[in-house]
Amino acid sequence: MLRMGVIGYGYWGPNVARNFSSVDGVRIVSIADRNPDSLKRAQKAFPGIELTEDHHRITTSPNVDAVAVVTPVSTHFAIAKEALQNGKHIFVEKPFTSTAAQAEELIELAERKDLKIMVDHTFLFTGAVRKMKDLIDGGELGALCYYDSTRVNLGLFQHDVNVVWDLAPHDLAIMDHLIEAKPEAVVATGGNHFTRHEYVAYITVYYGCNIIGHLNVNWLSPVKVRTTLVGGEKKMLVWNDLDPDVKIRVYDKGVDIQNRENVYDLLVSYRSGDMWAPRLDQTEALKLEAEYFLDCIMNDKVPFNDGKAGLRIVKVLESVDKSMKNRGELVYL
Amino acid sequence: MLRMGVIGYGYWGPNVARNFSSVDGVRIVSIADRNPDSLKRAQKAFPGIELTEDHHRITTSPNVDAVAVVTPVSTHFAIAKEALQNGKHIFVEKPFTSTAAQAEELIELAERKDLKIMVDHTFLFTGAVRKMKDLIDGGELGALCYYDSTRVNLGLFQHDVNVVWDLAPHDLAIMDHLIEAKPEAVVATGGNHFTRHEYVAYITVYYGCNIIGHLNVNWLSPVKVRTTLVGGEKKMLVWNDLDPDVKIRVYDKGVDIQNRENVYDLLVSYRSGDMWAPRLDQTEALKLEAEYFLDCIMNDKVPFNDGKAGLRIVKVLESVDKSMKNRGELVYL
Amino acid sequence: MLRMGVIGYGYWGPNVARNFSSVDGVRIVSIADRNPDSLKRAQKAFPGIELTEDHHRITTSPNVDAVAVVTPVSTHFAIAKEALQNGKHIFVEKPFTSTAAQAEELIELAERKDLKIMVDHTFLFTGAVRKMKDLIDGGELGALCYYDSTRVNLGLFQHDVNVVWDLAPHDLAIMDHLIEAKPEAVVATGGNHFTRHEYVAYITVYYGCNIIGHLNVNWLSPVKVRTTLVGGEKKMLVWNDLDPDVKIRVYDKGVDIQNRENVYDLLVSYRSGDMWAPRLDQTEALKLEAEYFLDCIMNDKVPFNDGKAGLRIVKVLESVDKSMKNRGELVYL
Amino acid sequence: MLRMGVIGYGYWGPNVARNFSSVDGVRIVSIADRNPDSLKRAQKAFPGIELTEDHHRITTSPNVDAVAVVTPVSTHFAIAKEALQNGKHIFVEKPFTSTAAQAEELIELAERKDLKIMVDHTFLFTGAVRKMKDLIDGGELGALCYYDSTRVNLGLFQHDVNVVWDLAPHDLAIMDHLIEAKPEAVVATGGNHFTRHEYVAYITVYYGCNIIGHLNVNWLSPVKVRTTLVGGEKKMLVWNDLDPDVKIRVYDKGVDIQNRENVYDLLVSYRSGDMWAPRLDQTEALKLEAEYFLDCIMNDKVPFNDGKAGLRIVKVLESVDKSMKNRGELVYL
Repeated sequence: MLRMGVIGYGYWGPNVARNFSSVDGVRIVSIADRNPDSLKRAQKAFPGIELTEDHHRITTSPNVDAVAVVTPVSTHFAIAKEALQNGKHIFVEKPFTSTAAQAEELIELAERKDLKIMVDHTFLFTGAVRKMKDLIDGGELGALCYYDSTRVNLGLFQHDVNVVWDLAPHDLAIMDHLIEAKPEAVVATGGNHFTRHEYVAYITVYYGCNIIGHLNVNWLSPVKVRTTLVGGEKKMLVWNDLDPDVKIRVYDKGVDIQNRENVYDLLVSYRSGDMWAPRLDQTEALKLEAEYFLDCIMNDKVPFNDGKAGLRIVKVLESVDKSMKNRGELVYL
Repeated sequence: MLRMGVIGYGYWGPNVARNFSSVDGVRIVSIADRNPDSLKRAQKAFPGIELTEDHHRITTSPNVDAVAVVTPVSTHFAIAKEALQNGKHIFVEKPFTSTAAQAEELIELAERKDLKIMVDHTFLFTGAVRKMKDLIDGGELGALCYYDSTRVNLGLFQHDVNVVWDLAPHDLAIMDHLIEAKPEAVVATGGNHFTRHEYVAYITVYYGCNIIGHLNVNWLSPVKVRTTLVGGEKKMLVWNDLDPDVKIRVYDKGVDIQNRENVYDLLVSYRSGDMWAPRLDQTEALKLEAEYFLDCIMNDKVPFNDGKAGLRIVKVLESVDKSMKNRGELVYL
Repeated sequence: MLRMGVIGYGYWGPNVARNFSSVDGVRIVSIADRNPDSLKRAQKAFPGIELTEDHHRITTSPNVDAVAVVTPVSTHFAIAKEALQNGKHIFVEKPFTSTAAQAEELIELAERKDLKIMVDHTFLFTGAVRKMKDLIDGGELGALCYYDSTRVNLGLFQHDVNVVWDLAPHDLAIMDHLIEAKPEAVVATGGNHFTRHEYVAYITVYYGCNIIGHLNVNWLSPVKVRTTLVGGEKKMLVWNDLDPDVKIRVYDKGVDIQNRENVYDLLVSYRSGDMWAPRLDQTEALKLEAEYFLDCIMNDKVPFNDGKAGLRIVKVLESVDKSMKNRGELVYL
Repeated sequence: MLRMGVIGYGYWGPNVARNFSSVDGVRIVSIADRNPDSLKRAQKAFPGIELTEDHHRITTSPNVDAVAVVTPVSTHFAIAKEALQNGKHIFVEKPFTSTAAQAEELIELAERKDLKIMVDHTFLFTGAVRKMKDLIDGGELGALCYYDSTRVNLGLFQHDVNVVWDLAPHDLAIMDHLIEAKPEAVVATGGNHFTRHEYVAYITVYYGCNIIGHLNVNWLSPVKVRTTLVGGEKKMLVWNDLDPDVKIRVYDKGVDIQNRENVYDLLVSYRSGDMWAPRLDQTEALKLEAEYFLDCIMNDKVPFNDGKAGLRIVKVLESVDKSMKNRGELVYL
């Protein structure tokens, strides 16, 4: 039985606690939050467990095997470090840390202590992303050309981070998961009409193999959009995460290049075939991720969403900030 | 009666000829095209007029008052120059020229000869763009924050130009028309997986007054998208040019910033009100533009889509190419 | 303090209990369900209250002032009658009863005992229906012409009722609420390819004032549709209940009839103006309904969704069944 | 070479003339219309051919082999009869005639004279309907359960016919083509708020084999809808004719009935699999139909859209009118 403590019971914490508690072999033993109202809600959902405003009670408790850190990103490092120092596995909300240096220190500490780190890149466990992974790895799309995501809505302006740190980690984690080639450099631009933090950002990630990634994130859109285009040499797909019924559409469309030797003379012709929308597994993503966390600990597996994955995302986020600050500076990763 | 010659009768030329011929006070007197099949179609539509494979017959004809240049962009300069030298007003397909230097030479020549140049930025005459212009100029949206356009489809790879010169002139002309602030610099990134020309590009235009513009153009999209978000301080709008029924939606949504003095302490709250979709004028845009061309010549008006407007767009296109070549280099305009 | 018992804690019961318990002045004191699993869930949500498999404990309890009957329709009458006989107000799931005779008996009993009946026509409390009510009563649409609803999905075939008794009560209650004219007759057709109960039905309701209503209900549709068109002489609206953002659209479209005296000579012309989507109140409908139930009891008001409203819906349902059985027989109400 | 005359050059006539003239082996030799403006347009499109305001010139001409009758339905019979009497094959706009008796007389006449009748049920030649025919005949959907079509828009109120004769022939012809079972009876209801002709109608067609068809046609809808659901025992499809990209979607969804012996005890479970959108042939339907007309005449084939097919549709239309007049009377075919 894995005994877990959950630190942070605001917006996302209740989902984390609920899903971990539904896994056979996991027991939520303690929940910490500074906000008494949050603790009241925790008590209602988990009557009888320990509740505390002091998260040190969890990070240092002898009765806790693993800690879920579901707090603002600026606090991740200190809490996670203390948990690791006290011998606990950690499950950390994304983005992993505020800086790459922090992430590296946590990874090194976990390795020394032989503990697991999992970063909560929830989207990787959705039916949609798992299906895209299968399609790409199975060669259905052919060699990738681009990944282009729009993730905009009228969103909460946050005080401590810009729109990039809020919305981009989703797509960056998905791209890290789907694209085999390495990201080489980023170029980012953004706007901060109202506040010191950017409300809109446009991020290009250059990958090897001539693959290009692009993210459009915006807190000031009148409509909510969650649409990603993925172009391959053979087929292309559209992922509309807001479609209640048909999230992934695979189009048998593309170009045929007759002569790639002499690009000055090439003949490009078009193919347009059927469209196909695979059925997606509906299991709640966080449930699968919680089971995977237990599995990795029990069977000593390295999660694919481990600290190093978290670090890769944080490095891109840092580079995006640097590029955006210098109006599109090319920042190598 | 304005006697017009049309040079180029391929894809767009027939629309130009048909609309100009429908204007009272304009007569199409001659059509030139190198392709005999195109001339055959021209004869069917305009029986009895002069048809020729040699466009010099038009640019030098004493019976022609104005010339419509509807040929590939690489040929615009030479044809337009000859027409101006022979005292003809010119209506030139977009983009105006291949280089800013060419555009400047034509503008100077036209001024010396007291002739009119109109660049065919057709979109400025659509009901949708005219309505957006009214809304923005009338203060309905408040101060502009951003203009963000996605213009993608499975498109024809062209041999002589990249996707930017093909698709971006539309939005660049619209932005030039709608945004009062001056563009200051561009950052562009792109991908050219298949050929030497980019098939996808992401363009950021920095304007004064903290306004940001962004274009996403792509020839390799499985779905066609023509959607633009325009964010203002008071309201925001969505322009979906593919919606047969409701192209413009104005959202009474936005943020209220309580305290802009102390940005560290600001309170951002949300407004969410009605949505409203104004009825748009359905008149064919090119018809209105043709009438405007005649009006500008007859009444000696300076068209807002004159050679200088065409030059401004070409300058941005050149800067985009330069920025894209250097992977997002900041290029000042 | 109104002390309530809830009978039935399956799919809808938890929502009823949760919303009533959130109303100041209401306390859930007892929950009954035959299914031990349901009672376990009830215990989790309402620790400390009385739980029982025997609903008579609630209908006869001296500590209960009002009873919510959230059981299959075939059981409504017996439970509701017992509750009324024991002096309890009742809140009954829709459809009110299995027959009009049962409804009449309950209404008469409640009147004699001076007790309130409310039938749970939840949709009447949604922001969308309240807005439509305002628009129609305020004359925005002009005189009504038609109400046309499509309510289809891949649904659960039920053993005890057909698709009409499952899906049509929603629209019938809304039509009863919105249309001032009286329903005069129904014509219904249906199909029962698989089972003895119809899986699809098409229902026409003839109203006075030349208004026509139509419902399309189907358990065997590959896609979920919840769309209603409402046509008025001045304007028309579309209610798409599945649109997460914009549920109600009012179109300034219609016909102008120049000469209604001589119908053989009339001139019909078209108007097409703006579209407008009012912001809707987002409050949970059942919450408002629970507050209204308390208000009606405390202040001795007659709810608009009282037993008589429930009876009117049941009468239409009975007529629909009769008409459908006789393949479209005209059944007067 | 088939020499054709076209009678009627209003809205649809130009399409008929253009498509027939594009077929190798067909020549348009004469066009008749009472409206001089229409003739002027005809002259522009077909310079050099005979134009006349007197259609008798065509029906009696020795130089005409076949006549296309593209006039209002009330005139079909007289024109078609005269053409047949003079030995011409006929291509008649839908609906075939105003009454079944007229259709029967024409059929009998054509048989006696050994001439072909084709009724212009254009939709049968669209890529969408041909694909549905393939899917159904190939057993992809399993046994059909229902065909449910919504065909509504803000339409032209016509003086001589109601909405049924205007819009329903499309779906009735498609149902006649797709559904092997025979139609047995109809039930129709409608509304005529403004004029003596119904602007909205709801039509149920009972077929053998427990198949049910339904049409919703409306001239007074604020939005245009062209959507058809087709339910089969194995799969179901949605045909959205307004989708520019993906008109046909096949859903691998449905119910599994475990026990059809004892319907009181049946177990219904749900299947939900992939969705699939086949590529459709984009050839203009009327072009294919024109080629088929020539083929049937040259090779003495009986068209599937012959006079008898036209008669079947007219019979249903007559029955619908009768049923609607008597408020849903069951009218056997």
